[in-house]
Amino acid sequence: MNGTYKALWLDKEDNLVVIDQRVLPFIEENITITNTEQCVEAIKNMTVRGAGVIGNTAAFGIFLAARESQENLAELENRAKLIRKSRPTAVNLMWAVDRMMNIARTSQNMLHDLKLEAIKICDEDCQTSKNIANYGADIFEELLKEQNKTSINILTHCNAGWLAIVDDGTALAPIYEAKRRGIDIHVWVDETRPRNQGANLTAWELEKAGVNHTVIADNTGGHLMQHGMVDICITGADRISRGGDAANKIGTYLKALAAKDNNIPFYIALPSSTFDFEIIDGLKEIPIEIRGEEEVKFIRGLDESGKYSKLQIVPTDSKALNYGFDVTPSRLITGLM
Amino acid sequence: MNGTYKALWLDKEDNLVVIDQRVLPFIEENITITNTEQCVEAIKNMTVRGAGVIGNTAAFGIFLAARESQENLAELENRAKLIRKSRPTAVNLMWAVDRMMNIARTSQNMLHDLKLEAIKICDEDCQTSKNIANYGADIFEELLKEQNKTSINILTHCNAGWLAIVDDGTALAPIYEAKRRGIDIHVWVDETRPRNQGANLTAWELEKAGVNHTVIADNTGGHLMQHGMVDICITGADRISRGGDAANKIGTYLKALAAKDNNIPFYIALPSSTFDFEIIDGLKEIPIEIRGEEEVKFIRGLDESGKYSKLQIVPTDSKALNYGFDVTPSRLITGLM
Repeated sequence: MNGTYKALWLDKEDNLVVIDQRVLPFIEENITITNTEQCVEAIKNMTVRGAGVIGNTAAFGIFLAARESQENLAELENRAKLIRKSRPTAVNLMWAVDRMMNIARTSQNMLHDLKLEAIKICDEDCQTSKNIANYGADIFEELLKEQNKTSINILTHCNAGWLAIVDDGTALAPIYEAKRRGIDIHVWVDETRPRNQGANLTAWELEKAGVNHTVIADNTGGHLMQHGMVDICITGADRISRGGDAANKIGTYLKALAAKDNNIPFYIALPSSTFDFEIIDGLKEIPIEIRGEEEVKFIRGLDESGKYSKLQIVPTDSKALNYGFDVTPSRLITGLM
Repeated sequence: MNGTYKALWLDKEDNLVVIDQRVLPFIEENITITNTEQCVEAIKNMTVRGAGVIGNTAAFGIFLAARESQENLAELENRAKLIRKSRPTAVNLMWAVDRMMNIARTSQNMLHDLKLEAIKICDEDCQTSKNIANYGADIFEELLKEQNKTSINILTHCNAGWLAIVDDGTALAPIYEAKRRGIDIHVWVDETRPRNQGANLTAWELEKAGVNHTVIADNTGGHLMQHGMVDICITGADRISRGGDAANKIGTYLKALAAKDNNIPFYIALPSSTFDFEIIDGLKEIPIEIRGEEEVKFIRGLDESGKYSKLQIVPTDSKALNYGFDVTPSRLITGLM
């Protein structure tokens, strides 16, 4: 491929263009990233999010940082540190920076090689997405056969579609593949508070693809599982320990508990770059990001005049706490895809 | 008492005044209910909510309906049916209507006796609230002693304070009592999507009472429990089966699963009128209300100019589904208070 993917691409001047995921689905707008500072800011403020796309943005960010440093390695090392620590939980970020810096440190043609490597990382993610798509859709077909059903209900949390991982994403890839295969699917979309990546991004992706879906409050999945309304759960992941404990968007653990309690298969879909083999006990060792309380106290959407706006939804004097992720122990996970 | 409580009261003309709980905490406004239609509407549209206060409103509603019917029993029976079916899950509603109608059917002085009975129901709820307060605060003190701690972290879901049950509520009553006893407490307040009774009502109540608290997304409780940040969970209930399965606000089941998984005590606080001895299997038999999808797709709060407004937060063409309650099986409940 040539550095052109749905969620991000290189423009003619080799700047990185990304979809602004903060304002979807109500505003479709792109942002151009030309230097380190903009790259760090886009990752921090969640213009881009999703383990894979964070990694891809960081990879292209190293390329842009090298250009900004005029291929001075010492300067690039400093800029790479800034990118590497822009968010703490998704390990694809650190992995991509390290891989890019290994190239930078040895290359005789730094800019050229960094651009190729960033593209290679994205292309590998595309291949992973295709593999997950086929593997997952095969699991759906087996489930349908086993249970003698004609349609399948899938629950997903947060967004692990093409906005999160290039090509078709991870958790959503089997759903898109099932749609292509003509399987009758319906997706329960957890709205995913506080940033609403489910209601805003997953619902938007599925709507665009014509996939039958229903948005639910994050509180609802347990009830649906108790009543046979969910056949399988699939989420993405931001970091997986050596033993298979999975850090993913806050709330994933609660859904995994409910799936276990109701004998429903719970899968995590991920590229291999999401593994962190340094980590043994995911619960104790994976760093969990705490984001600003304003993400809980305020919410964004379309007002009655059609303007994109912000509302306060928690009393002014009440505090809020905003953990970004939780860790689902491997004992609750049926399998990885 | 005389028909005067914090969440509702009789005015000088014997009309029922209730706090409009739909617009708290941003607008503090009362609504006067004078007849059956207004009573049914206030329960349906959640001007009043919370198992106890729904029952109290229904009880006073029967009194108002009798006045409206000019004490004609046949007419009152018809109006009582409308009130009885205004919401399906909280059994206190049916219980209060039945108890009031038993008086209506036998009384020689219908209006007088109905007013007294409605007040009696509220006064009994006040007594229940006091009993729960003491019992629950004693449990906190035992927990502190057992674990050799000086402060206690309590997680609650939805609102079961004085807005939900007259006097101090159910789940919040031990918290208010602990505050009075000088126990060092902190409350994790689940925001409780989609209607945000936690962020809007519980946070507001606790703030007014000077109780230390933090609002969290509903997704967060599992992570807090995994990391020893919750000592005990307490919620209210809308209906309890003979065997102790508890219907409560959607999402309660997920928190009970997390509490079990982390060996954290999970209590349900309730008046005896919340029991439904006709129900054996709560999961199969308790009717679960489905409310409008607009409660998921739109949210209310204060806009940047300080105006109370509404935002759309789900794509227009995506469907949403809105179950109001779920059932927590008794095996996950440590005890009732």
